[in-house]
Amino acid sequence: RSEEMAKSTQLIDNEVFRAYATYTAIVLLKMMLMSLLTAYFRVTRKAFVNPEDTASFGKGESAKKYLRTDADVERVRRTHLNDLENIVPFVGIGLLYALSGPELGTALLHFRIFAGARILHTLAYLIPLPQPGRGLSWVAGYAVTLSMAYRVLQAVLLL
Amino acid sequence: RSEEMAKSTQLIDNEVFRAYATYTAIVLLKMMLMSLLTAYFRVTRKAFVNPEDTASFGKGESAKKYLRTDADVERVRRTHLNDLENIVPFVGIGLLYALSGPELGTALLHFRIFAGARILHTLAYLIPLPQPGRGLSWVAGYAVTLSMAYRVLQAVLLL
Amino acid sequence: RSEEMAKSTQLIDNEVFRAYATYTAIVLLKMMLMSLLTAYFRVTRKAFVNPEDTASFGKGESAKKYLRTDADVERVRRTHLNDLENIVPFVGIGLLYALSGPELGTALLHFRIFAGARILHTLAYLIPLPQPGRGLSWVAGYAVTLSMAYRVLQAVLLL
Repeated sequence: RSEEMAKSTQLIDNEVFRAYATYTAIVLLKMMLMSLLTAYFRVTRKAFVNPEDTASFGKGESAKKYLRTDADVERVRRTHLNDLENIVPFVGIGLLYALSGPELGTALLHFRIFAGARILHTLAYLIPLPQPGRGLSWVAGYAVTLSMAYRVLQAVLLL
Repeated sequence: RSEEMAKSTQLIDNEVFRAYATYTAIVLLKMMLMSLLTAYFRVTRKAFVNPEDTASFGKGESAKKYLRTDADVERVRRTHLNDLENIVPFVGIGLLYALSGPELGTALLHFRIFAGARILHTLAYLIPLPQPGRGLSWVAGYAVTLSMAYRVLQAVLLL
Repeated sequence: RSEEMAKSTQLIDNEVFRAYATYTAIVLLKMMLMSLLTAYFRVTRKAFVNPEDTASFGKGESAKKYLRTDADVERVRRTHLNDLENIVPFVGIGLLYALSGPELGTALLHFRIFAGARILHTLAYLIPLPQPGRGLSWVAGYAVTLSMAYRVLQAVLLL
């Protein structure tokens, strides 16, 4: 049993891996927040997509009018999809990067810029801020992931 | 060579990690099933989105009428996207959770509730069941992931 | 410190894991390329979705006409979403597979077919090639992931 515990806590004792775990949890929680925001806007804007979701508003035409798109709901949904498109590569490449033995300071710099960039991206998308606010925050996160991928391929390349 | 094998099977010998691997494989396979279902509904409902996909139905207008949306196809696609939005955080946070050394029983409880909740969510979405069936199954999976994220941040926090 | 480094480079010294890391980085970078392609087509086709993205084209109606969908943009976006739906299971199941101690040759075969299939899928989708080009490349990647999932469940099953 104690041997098992030792095995399981091995990676988690590594500081770079702990930093990776911290920032991955943060950006995935931030992404999950988009689901709640979508639900919030659907309910407050009364804009649904599934007929069964409007059943509580009555039957027939009185409920049907709530099956519609809403600009705010669609905006949150785009933010959510953009998170998926960018956070999935970060989580996958970041794991490999964390295991490739980078310096803690360098790794923290990558993780902090990525997390900060994605939080700014969400704010820029939802407020919304004038461009190039959203564009630049997207580029920052993208560049961090490219930098980690370069380091990973340098460390492990086996085709 | 044998040393390599030992290294590679190290994590896989840990019971919590084996449980994580089992349930992650199950929920990812469940998500992959959505692709097959989308294809099935596109073919049976004759509702396609790419012109090259309708070429076998003939040329010109006779094929063009199959470039349309269908309520069942769109419903499966929403289920698939909801899986992506929820299973990606489970896979990422669940891995960190499994490595943070939880009790096997506690970990199994988390993984089983999540997998069960997502299977129920898919059934509730596709049948469809009246609300709050789908809503509650979504909340159960979401809550499990939040609980794992809390444990991960408690165990590893390194900002 | 050196002990930490040793821990962190342990997995990365395993050849199967290095192969997994290489191909995972490649397919995630390929997926990230879809973001750049979407941006390229949005700018060259002048087809945007957010009002703040068209502000540089002037005010009022002169900018509003660029808030529209474009067939090429939508095609790239479908390719991107298809990548998410298929590369996420590969990255998750592939990690578990790499840790389950497969032969290096077998693992490389899986990873190479998957990466090749997804690159062909993108080309088939964007050129576009006549069917069943895209369909077959999709099936190849899907089958590889199923094969890895089977091996994972065989090796770790703990319900």
